[in-house]
Amino acid sequence: MLSGPLDLVVQNAKIVTSEGVYSAEIGVDEGKIVRIAKSIEDSAERTYDAEGRYVFPGAIDGHVHFKLKYFDDVYTADDFYTGTVAAACGGVTTIIDFVTPESLNYVEDFRRRRAEAEPNVVIDYGLHMSVTNFNEEVVKNLETLFRSEGVASVKIFTAYSKRGLMLDDGKIFKLMQLCKKWNVLVLVHAENEYIINSLVDSFVEEGKTEPIYHSWSRPDFVEAEAIQRVGLLASVTGAEILIVHVSSAAGLEKIVDHRSKGVKIHGETCPHYLIFNEEVYRRPDGAKFIMSPPLKKESDRQALWKGLLDGCFSVVGSDHACFDSVRKLSPKRFTEVPGGVAGTEVIPMILFSEGVLKRGMTFRRFVEVTSLNPARVYGLYPAKGQIAVGSDADFYILDPMRKTRLTKENLHSNIDHSIYEDLEVNCNIVATFSRGELIAEKGVFMGERGRGRYLFRSRGVA
Amino acid sequence: MLSGPLDLVVQNAKIVTSEGVYSAEIGVDEGKIVRIAKSIEDSAERTYDAEGRYVFPGAIDGHVHFKLKYFDDVYTADDFYTGTVAAACGGVTTIIDFVTPESLNYVEDFRRRRAEAEPNVVIDYGLHMSVTNFNEEVVKNLETLFRSEGVASVKIFTAYSKRGLMLDDGKIFKLMQLCKKWNVLVLVHAENEYIINSLVDSFVEEGKTEPIYHSWSRPDFVEAEAIQRVGLLASVTGAEILIVHVSSAAGLEKIVDHRSKGVKIHGETCPHYLIFNEEVYRRPDGAKFIMSPPLKKESDRQALWKGLLDGCFSVVGSDHACFDSVRKLSPKRFTEVPGGVAGTEVIPMILFSEGVLKRGMTFRRFVEVTSLNPARVYGLYPAKGQIAVGSDADFYILDPMRKTRLTKENLHSNIDHSIYEDLEVNCNIVATFSRGELIAEKGVFMGERGRGRYLFRSRGVA
Amino acid sequence: MLSGPLDLVVQNAKIVTSEGVYSAEIGVDEGKIVRIAKSIEDSAERTYDAEGRYVFPGAIDGHVHFKLKYFDDVYTADDFYTGTVAAACGGVTTIIDFVTPESLNYVEDFRRRRAEAEPNVVIDYGLHMSVTNFNEEVVKNLETLFRSEGVASVKIFTAYSKRGLMLDDGKIFKLMQLCKKWNVLVLVHAENEYIINSLVDSFVEEGKTEPIYHSWSRPDFVEAEAIQRVGLLASVTGAEILIVHVSSAAGLEKIVDHRSKGVKIHGETCPHYLIFNEEVYRRPDGAKFIMSPPLKKESDRQALWKGLLDGCFSVVGSDHACFDSVRKLSPKRFTEVPGGVAGTEVIPMILFSEGVLKRGMTFRRFVEVTSLNPARVYGLYPAKGQIAVGSDADFYILDPMRKTRLTKENLHSNIDHSIYEDLEVNCNIVATFSRGELIAEKGVFMGERGRGRYLFRSRGVA
Amino acid sequence: MLSGPLDLVVQNAKIVTSEGVYSAEIGVDEGKIVRIAKSIEDSAERTYDAEGRYVFPGAIDGHVHFKLKYFDDVYTADDFYTGTVAAACGGVTTIIDFVTPESLNYVEDFRRRRAEAEPNVVIDYGLHMSVTNFNEEVVKNLETLFRSEGVASVKIFTAYSKRGLMLDDGKIFKLMQLCKKWNVLVLVHAENEYIINSLVDSFVEEGKTEPIYHSWSRPDFVEAEAIQRVGLLASVTGAEILIVHVSSAAGLEKIVDHRSKGVKIHGETCPHYLIFNEEVYRRPDGAKFIMSPPLKKESDRQALWKGLLDGCFSVVGSDHACFDSVRKLSPKRFTEVPGGVAGTEVIPMILFSEGVLKRGMTFRRFVEVTSLNPARVYGLYPAKGQIAVGSDADFYILDPMRKTRLTKENLHSNIDHSIYEDLEVNCNIVATFSRGELIAEKGVFMGERGRGRYLFRSRGVA
Repeated sequence: MLSGPLDLVVQNAKIVTSEGVYSAEIGVDEGKIVRIAKSIEDSAERTYDAEGRYVFPGAIDGHVHFKLKYFDDVYTADDFYTGTVAAACGGVTTIIDFVTPESLNYVEDFRRRRAEAEPNVVIDYGLHMSVTNFNEEVVKNLETLFRSEGVASVKIFTAYSKRGLMLDDGKIFKLMQLCKKWNVLVLVHAENEYIINSLVDSFVEEGKTEPIYHSWSRPDFVEAEAIQRVGLLASVTGAEILIVHVSSAAGLEKIVDHRSKGVKIHGETCPHYLIFNEEVYRRPDGAKFIMSPPLKKESDRQALWKGLLDGCFSVVGSDHACFDSVRKLSPKRFTEVPGGVAGTEVIPMILFSEGVLKRGMTFRRFVEVTSLNPARVYGLYPAKGQIAVGSDADFYILDPMRKTRLTKENLHSNIDHSIYEDLEVNCNIVATFSRGELIAEKGVFMGERGRGRYLFRSRGVA
Repeated sequence: MLSGPLDLVVQNAKIVTSEGVYSAEIGVDEGKIVRIAKSIEDSAERTYDAEGRYVFPGAIDGHVHFKLKYFDDVYTADDFYTGTVAAACGGVTTIIDFVTPESLNYVEDFRRRRAEAEPNVVIDYGLHMSVTNFNEEVVKNLETLFRSEGVASVKIFTAYSKRGLMLDDGKIFKLMQLCKKWNVLVLVHAENEYIINSLVDSFVEEGKTEPIYHSWSRPDFVEAEAIQRVGLLASVTGAEILIVHVSSAAGLEKIVDHRSKGVKIHGETCPHYLIFNEEVYRRPDGAKFIMSPPLKKESDRQALWKGLLDGCFSVVGSDHACFDSVRKLSPKRFTEVPGGVAGTEVIPMILFSEGVLKRGMTFRRFVEVTSLNPARVYGLYPAKGQIAVGSDADFYILDPMRKTRLTKENLHSNIDHSIYEDLEVNCNIVATFSRGELIAEKGVFMGERGRGRYLFRSRGVA
Repeated sequence: MLSGPLDLVVQNAKIVTSEGVYSAEIGVDEGKIVRIAKSIEDSAERTYDAEGRYVFPGAIDGHVHFKLKYFDDVYTADDFYTGTVAAACGGVTTIIDFVTPESLNYVEDFRRRRAEAEPNVVIDYGLHMSVTNFNEEVVKNLETLFRSEGVASVKIFTAYSKRGLMLDDGKIFKLMQLCKKWNVLVLVHAENEYIINSLVDSFVEEGKTEPIYHSWSRPDFVEAEAIQRVGLLASVTGAEILIVHVSSAAGLEKIVDHRSKGVKIHGETCPHYLIFNEEVYRRPDGAKFIMSPPLKKESDRQALWKGLLDGCFSVVGSDHACFDSVRKLSPKRFTEVPGGVAGTEVIPMILFSEGVLKRGMTFRRFVEVTSLNPARVYGLYPAKGQIAVGSDADFYILDPMRKTRLTKENLHSNIDHSIYEDLEVNCNIVATFSRGELIAEKGVFMGERGRGRYLFRSRGVA
Repeated sequence: MLSGPLDLVVQNAKIVTSEGVYSAEIGVDEGKIVRIAKSIEDSAERTYDAEGRYVFPGAIDGHVHFKLKYFDDVYTADDFYTGTVAAACGGVTTIIDFVTPESLNYVEDFRRRRAEAEPNVVIDYGLHMSVTNFNEEVVKNLETLFRSEGVASVKIFTAYSKRGLMLDDGKIFKLMQLCKKWNVLVLVHAENEYIINSLVDSFVEEGKTEPIYHSWSRPDFVEAEAIQRVGLLASVTGAEILIVHVSSAAGLEKIVDHRSKGVKIHGETCPHYLIFNEEVYRRPDGAKFIMSPPLKKESDRQALWKGLLDGCFSVVGSDHACFDSVRKLSPKRFTEVPGGVAGTEVIPMILFSEGVLKRGMTFRRFVEVTSLNPARVYGLYPAKGQIAVGSDADFYILDPMRKTRLTKENLHSNIDHSIYEDLEVNCNIVATFSRGELIAEKGVFMGERGRGRYLFRSRGVA
């Protein structure tokens, strides 16, 4: 039982859950929601007046790359501090980053990565383990991570052989068997390596090295093929998989096909695929938009929105991995441009403005793809993913009446530009709370470096 | 703001929502949930200790027939009082019954029916309007009901021409257009009239009049045909429809087919189809199990369970319409047996014991089909359908550790037998609250006759 | 063994079969093909020089209505003489007409109908039995027709209740069971009676009685619904069915759906659905184009062509039933216009010119839908349907280099107009042979009235 | 015009075509069919009395490996002479073998291979070009082969990287683009290389090296995955492909899936998959049955038969590649057993006895998969593939009343055993004619070594 005052009461809230919206107040103590009521009269250390605005469960961005090594001592622009600050300012209260193996001792690699994050993160976080090889030693390490280190998901690549990331179908098959046994989720970067290489070689040979050829060397079927392939392996092994950064109608269709046959397959799409199409590659600064998979046709963009509204996608993640203009724009050939864009901060704003307001996305779907589903599928539920008594007090306040211009200045990523520059969204993230602490308000981060905690994840029965 | 003590605090609850389960206490005032908290220390008129048991949102049985005229002055055994008492004892806090037209003045028929219910119901209720004709006068009446009387759903029959209920496809088409315009749900009793008649005639002619022939005169495709037909009309008109009492794998498949093409079609199944198959018709008291559509094969039963777990059914309803043994068993021919069985009281118990415990049904699905989905689809949300601050304090407490034997004595329907006699379920409905009032406890009804309220329903945007 | 000279040798022929095209000569004796050779040097009563043109197996039009009673003593314009003369001039060497019951004594009705045809037909013919009722007497009569009278197909209507033709679903079910037992084909006029009536009533009430409302009172789903319904009954009974005069994309899709699930269902479309769309109903003489089902949208017309090229349709028939201008144009309301158009004569010309030449229809498909498939499905194979030694010498010679203008004057139907007036086709039917006899040449009929023979049909194993 | 007597008249024949069966006589001159007639009275050098038996168009086995190098100077047991003799004795009148590149100079490799065949073949033959690399030089060579050397098909492997045969997806994509341009067919050995390797490694590591593990290291999804992958590439490029030796239900399903979406994809299965299942691998001589893909489950065998009868397979080929017992049985591990079995000779007998007689396969299907379809798809039509005036006089006479025991002695392959030993078929190949010459009769080959001719193939529009 509680004694003494509550830590926080949020007053005048319109609480949004996947079941609906209702007006109430939220009482928080020791980082958790302990009370939801029409009116809370208990004494509280602090009150926050939501002024009748929406209070959403904190967004979970299950796909970020902070301090990702590009080569030598070149890293992505955002480290765990600047990256999580940007996330926090946008309403994201949990991120999951990746461990890239540097050896077969995955446990050691995991610890090293955790040590990089720990002193810097400002919100709670987890780590997916990327798997780039498969043998007895890898199995032993993975089992340790699954059993003792709170790793509930692995990541594989069907491409990037040159960077040592690709896992062949035989190893994928065995890894999926292992993951099925441990009920661990398999995230898949799904593109067909060989077709990409073949097309890239042709374009380069013909001197076609402008940014648009980045897109054309990875046409939609490059993605669709890989999805249909790993989907079949998921079907055979019974493993649960999640296709990250789905960028094409054809790719999405393969996910839907497999799901309709009972395969446990999820899809993630990203804000940039929802906002842009390949036409931006023709802009003078087109190289800024280079990421893999690349932006596709306008018809793909439309199909992704439709899929998002229809429930075909389980989650939205940012694939946040960004570089300064000079790194993006100086290379002469698309093959030499470091891939990736910033995005974690814009997820709630873009989905609310472009999704809910403009395209009739329901609150139910919004909450599912930004918070409830990631919590469930990544093994964070019930601590994360909902506004409910007993859960962590992670939420943000969104004002649907105030516009926000997405500019380099208004956003918090540690880069010198924004691909969204000029885009105005019809909402504003007023405040973000992490475990009951007001960590960001009106675009100003107010928390302490290193306050975030590592999340031991575990995927129970759905 | 509240002044004075709360009306009720439910302590030590495990609250179940479609998002998950969490431990908290529930504060109720003036019939509504005003507070959910780890611990509520406010003073309260009354506390109820749930002792760590599950608290579910009150079940909504959208399909009951109380005081349904069979012929002359013969009615179903349960009237609005005994029927709602049985419902309440089983955890059902809302029922929806039907208005059967006796004229073209549907408004008058509706008022007459409401007058029958009003002084007797012990829980809140709504009324579907059955539509058995379609012309200008009917349209005028329906529009009045939709606009002013809180009727948000109509019911049609593709069979029962002899009882004057059947609506032909042309009229169905026009009614669906009207319902699309008013966003009114169309419930469908879907069986092919002509094939039934043809088969019944053959059997009767051949002297095959035992109960099993009731089933064989309405084989699965009789249902599947009608579903595929009204599904197509729904597709063309854009109306939202709900196929009631789905009894066969073939019928369910048609629903799934249509949904996969974007048709707004829902399915309801009933407890009896989940527990029995046609073999019971061979029992000496087989006639007790006569209802339409009839029980089908064991493979159908299995398919219905699968569909229920997979999310193919939107709701479970009882189609409660029962008669004493003598009425069921005395006729010589299956054609003369009044159709229907009791069921409203057993919905939560059977779905929990046979679904959640035995077949791994998730809590999410359980809450959806018994409460959240009916609330949404029938236009009762958000007052009904969830345990959330601001909603009606309708919920029941279920003990998963205590068994219940379903017997005539333990059940509350006003009939002299139970088709479930001998079935033991691994749970017990400990207590039921309606608008914060404890109306049933340990099988004893404690509320007042007539305390239930008519619900003005309205289907907003999903 | 032959003694004496052959009756006929066709020289310089390019023989077309469903397997391909080859150059050879054809020797005929006693009405049958007795020889196919690079060169036939046997003496012959007669030689015919095909001059290197295509020789196609005689077309089989399985759907004509000659001397069909409209009311009182008003009949369609073509009787068995003028109708078969028109057919012959167009390359059609076999027609199948219908027996419409005037009593329950179907055998007598059949004999009466055969007597009407016998003295008049100029090409060989069969008769489908229309079934408009179903009871013991009908069964007895049908079995006689199946067993002894060479009737291998029945026709049913899901519409036209006012004209006494409609069979309800229960009777259809039983008839299909009977037809399955006898391996008899069931032809279906598939439109939903009740929706048509409902829409017609509305239009008439609103004073909308121009020809276009004929089409709008029978929209595509009227056809699609009926097809999906009878298809399901075919699936359940195992009967083989053929949907006549398919007019819409939606209807065709239902056929394809059922076939893909193994249902034995065929489709027929007609020349008019391939050439016209509903826009013609807006012409001053729009009523000339009234037939049921009516012409639909341009997108339907395109879909029918696609289906024809893709193999979705098994046969093309004409549904030939025509009336003089005055009968078509004088009624004030579309409901009073006698339905039907002329078409048997144009089948080969239109399919060759618009299909083979313009849309890349293969010879294989052309031969299948005009001759081989009708022969197989209607029980005429191997006497009819192919150019092969032993088969009847039914074939026609088509000149792909000579154009034909379809005009009232060039065509042979006994009506005062042609709906095709002005259409030019890029081919010409040079000559038609029936059982080795040259019965038409360059548009002139040369045979004798009554030379056609009744065909005892029998459907063997496919 | 002919002068002088015919070379051959086949009397009393029941000629089988894909359209049906009819009784006639066949006149042959200069290797071609010049006459088909009820009775041929022309003088003839030779007559052959078919005694009322079936005369089938000569079978075309598009998949044989004669004189295939295994390693060093070890070759398959049959060379072009013994292999084609065996084929001829079984009713096969055309075979297509393969050119395996030994360099990038494919034209030279092709000529070398043709030189190996030319002096030895006893029936007509063609050559598929295997493509194991893809670059400018390969393109140049392929275009020469397509343009000037009568090569109308290429073969690719998605497996066998260790033997240098595998082509990666990027190269496959480009090759398909080239083949689309030239209307060249792409044959595909479809198995997933990496999964096979992974499973083989595991089994070998665990000491599981008996023949059954050959099958278990290549489970059905190994095949299904590769088919779905190349099918997608065919879809994207528009190329026409043929999956050789389909062995599993899952694989077949992928073919059907793609076809239903309009992909130009064909399937071939082989006699051994239709007769045996994996159980034979447990026999003491199980290694004799090792081929790739391996025999699968009994349910796969049943599915293949069903697919064959339903029209899902376009062709049946033998994948004839055989070795003496000692080579098959002496290795200790399945990985060291040379793959392949004999089969060309048994195609017509097995399909007729097990297909037509036992499973109700239609003559139409029989003729299509053994002769007409291979002729069309491989570019041999109309010279091969049918019994029609103008075509090559390739046919065989089958006696359905005489049984044949398939034994080493009765069969003609140059190996010391037969996997079919003990199988009795209910038919007998009485005689085989190639270009009008009786080359085999009652199991005795009567032609001359080297009489076969190389076939310049060309795929016209279907």
